[in-house]
Amino acid sequence: MNTNSDTIVAIATPPGQGAIGIVRLSGPAAGEIARGLFHSSRPGFTAFRPYHLHHGQLRDAGGNFLDEVLAAFMPGPGSFTGEDVVELQCHGGGAVLRRVVEECLEHGARLAAPGEFSKRAFLNSRMDLTQAEAIMELVGAPTAVAVGLAGSKLEGLLARRIGELRAGLEALRVQLCVAVDFPEDEVECLAPEDLAAGVAEVREAMAELADNYDRGRCWRDGALVVLAGQVNAGKSSLMNAILGINRAIVTDIPGTTRDYLEESVQIDGLPVRLVDTAGLRASLDSVELLGIERSRELLGRADLVLLVIDSELGPGAEDLDLALNTDNLLVVANKMDLVGGEPAWLGESPWNERELCPLSAKHGQGVSDLLAAIRRIVAATGAPEAGALVPNLRQHTALVRAGEELAQMLDELADGQPYDILSVRLDTACVLLAEITGEISSQEVLSAVFDGFCIGK
Amino acid sequence: MNTNSDTIVAIATPPGQGAIGIVRLSGPAAGEIARGLFHSSRPGFTAFRPYHLHHGQLRDAGGNFLDEVLAAFMPGPGSFTGEDVVELQCHGGGAVLRRVVEECLEHGARLAAPGEFSKRAFLNSRMDLTQAEAIMELVGAPTAVAVGLAGSKLEGLLARRIGELRAGLEALRVQLCVAVDFPEDEVECLAPEDLAAGVAEVREAMAELADNYDRGRCWRDGALVVLAGQVNAGKSSLMNAILGINRAIVTDIPGTTRDYLEESVQIDGLPVRLVDTAGLRASLDSVELLGIERSRELLGRADLVLLVIDSELGPGAEDLDLALNTDNLLVVANKMDLVGGEPAWLGESPWNERELCPLSAKHGQGVSDLLAAIRRIVAATGAPEAGALVPNLRQHTALVRAGEELAQMLDELADGQPYDILSVRLDTACVLLAEITGEISSQEVLSAVFDGFCIGK
Repeated sequence: MNTNSDTIVAIATPPGQGAIGIVRLSGPAAGEIARGLFHSSRPGFTAFRPYHLHHGQLRDAGGNFLDEVLAAFMPGPGSFTGEDVVELQCHGGGAVLRRVVEECLEHGARLAAPGEFSKRAFLNSRMDLTQAEAIMELVGAPTAVAVGLAGSKLEGLLARRIGELRAGLEALRVQLCVAVDFPEDEVECLAPEDLAAGVAEVREAMAELADNYDRGRCWRDGALVVLAGQVNAGKSSLMNAILGINRAIVTDIPGTTRDYLEESVQIDGLPVRLVDTAGLRASLDSVELLGIERSRELLGRADLVLLVIDSELGPGAEDLDLALNTDNLLVVANKMDLVGGEPAWLGESPWNERELCPLSAKHGQGVSDLLAAIRRIVAATGAPEAGALVPNLRQHTALVRAGEELAQMLDELADGQPYDILSVRLDTACVLLAEITGEISSQEVLSAVFDGFCIGK
Repeated sequence: MNTNSDTIVAIATPPGQGAIGIVRLSGPAAGEIARGLFHSSRPGFTAFRPYHLHHGQLRDAGGNFLDEVLAAFMPGPGSFTGEDVVELQCHGGGAVLRRVVEECLEHGARLAAPGEFSKRAFLNSRMDLTQAEAIMELVGAPTAVAVGLAGSKLEGLLARRIGELRAGLEALRVQLCVAVDFPEDEVECLAPEDLAAGVAEVREAMAELADNYDRGRCWRDGALVVLAGQVNAGKSSLMNAILGINRAIVTDIPGTTRDYLEESVQIDGLPVRLVDTAGLRASLDSVELLGIERSRELLGRADLVLLVIDSELGPGAEDLDLALNTDNLLVVANKMDLVGGEPAWLGESPWNERELCPLSAKHGQGVSDLLAAIRRIVAATGAPEAGALVPNLRQHTALVRAGEELAQMLDELADGQPYDILSVRLDTACVLLAEITGEISSQEVLSAVFDGFCIGK
């Protein structure tokens, strides 16, 4: 149990306006500070009953009315932070909540540092590090799928899986230690081939878990879908048709979309970052050249490239170049309303070998089919199944590093290195896994995790 | 007691990301719906204890984890709405809160209409109409002073004052009624001069209260301070100096600030809307002319006009014109760093009769004196004292209309109209006062009040 002598305060609800806003106190003086501000609407009130919502008013030291509130006192260790916690449910406006925080400061609280509530909860063993991170992921989750992925971690399922992997390594390490400690006792010693098999098994399971990081990225950060194609192929119009709003400026002047426009849309639960690039046209205009460079960089990172082609004019040399050099490409035959029937170029290679979406961005025809295709292609390449455990970047990095230790250990084992050398590798891998859950944690790891939180979390 | 057969649900906290977000249910099935989602972390849990915070998880019908929450059940009539209410304290992210709301809908709740929680609270006599409006004003209050003004109303002080005024009129009306009902009974009849004195007294008190509307406007909406002056007098630079940021584009090209820029700043607790106008320069440019027209409109509405003059060049004809025709004007002698000592024009009429702020926006000299002057001038003309009751527009309108009825009644009384005619005027004034608190309320009044609320309030 970590004990803090000071009591922290912060607004716990999102900024902005709402019916309810919460000011949260945590620390030994939380109850006393709240008691100094709170005037119960029940005349016989003497003390907060634990976990009970008390109705009353907050008043400053001068007796001035601040707000009508519900106050709840949650004594440690049975609270979020493990310390005494008070929640003051106020009305949800910025100035009124700031006034309440100010009064708490007047009464001896100090303003919480970013992530300090969660950090105290972690230090008081109310949650492990993956659960603390899961709160942030849950709060920032853009979609229901992302909520589910964060939820599994908040439940502690990732910590449990990491624990299983670590236990597997610890079991092998015990058998190595026995061999190191008692080298003459041949009976207890794990045979090299059994050690190799055991390590390889854990390493594979770790790699599988680490792989979910990339697979979960689309759900977490949104799939990057980049619109490419010649100037005036109708990229801006298509983007507008998808968005249903006139965000991009659509004109008949070639090269209007100089830089790139990005919009976030959701397609049946999949978050998509839709980016309209500058036309891939050779140009002497420096602003436009800069746009083209950024376009190429975006195309390289795209989860899916939509190559928009004017069906009437047909593909140009750049389109062909892009089609031949891009795997994750969907051909959009735009302006189908201007051609009678199927245009000839669609029957020619490589276009006849590609998945194709014929549509008219201008008239909105075929756009919903395009969205369904985007959803299907991205989900097939990226989406982890429901309930999958998806590590975040920190967790992924530790898993990869632990895997590298095990890979080196297997190399050293094959080289005939002694068990006491190998044992160091196993130790390091175990520490890396323990850092994921925070069972072993350095000040650097804790800072890295909690400093990214907002004040109030 | 108003009874609703349906149960409403909405997110009660501001949108965005925070540690805590609340989903609120109100209606007969609130407890049952929450019970269907909530899985207590206490194994023996069977039912919600009223006003108690229960820790547990929310799970959907398929058993999927949604969030870890604190749930509180508040049975009617001792709740915000007067109905059974459940608050689910979730983690404060948009997608997770939407998922929880969706599950509540699945379990039979319906999405709340804007202001529906507050409307139910009003209809169930949990608050009067001024208190319901005070919640909105408190939530939207930009400053601590505005918080205090809204707080007085939330406490019910405005309703009490309106009640006193209405009681005064009702007392007079009783004495009129007696006269109408028993015209022969001369003993009970109020003498015309006593009636006139009584009505005039209430009318004066009503007018005093109504006047606070205008006086409170600066604290509520922010004082409108408009920067005027010739092109290149340094208005944009001054605005930037005040803001401390480069929001306006400052260049040497005349007429750069075409339209107007608005920024909100706080000067020692006073909210100020600072507007930089287009230069008041004769121009054939249509865009600029449009800007000039808007400038004139803004100058007419301004609480204070800052006339910015280039000290080196001195005032122009337009500056003189503005100075002679504007009462609430503060002369800002800018670019004082370019002139040695006091420029000659400052000694001439009308400039030597005006309050003046010499400064250098470029070097920041004198800007804090200007801010102090703005604060002092606006506060002197506008600020109601702490604890004053400041009606909102709806309340103000009803007070003014009630005052007009009384004024007409006094005219009719002077004309010797009979008491039964006068009584109708008194009735109307009483009804208008009762509409302020909602003791008498039409569907139109309720719609006007509650439809302006957000969903969740």
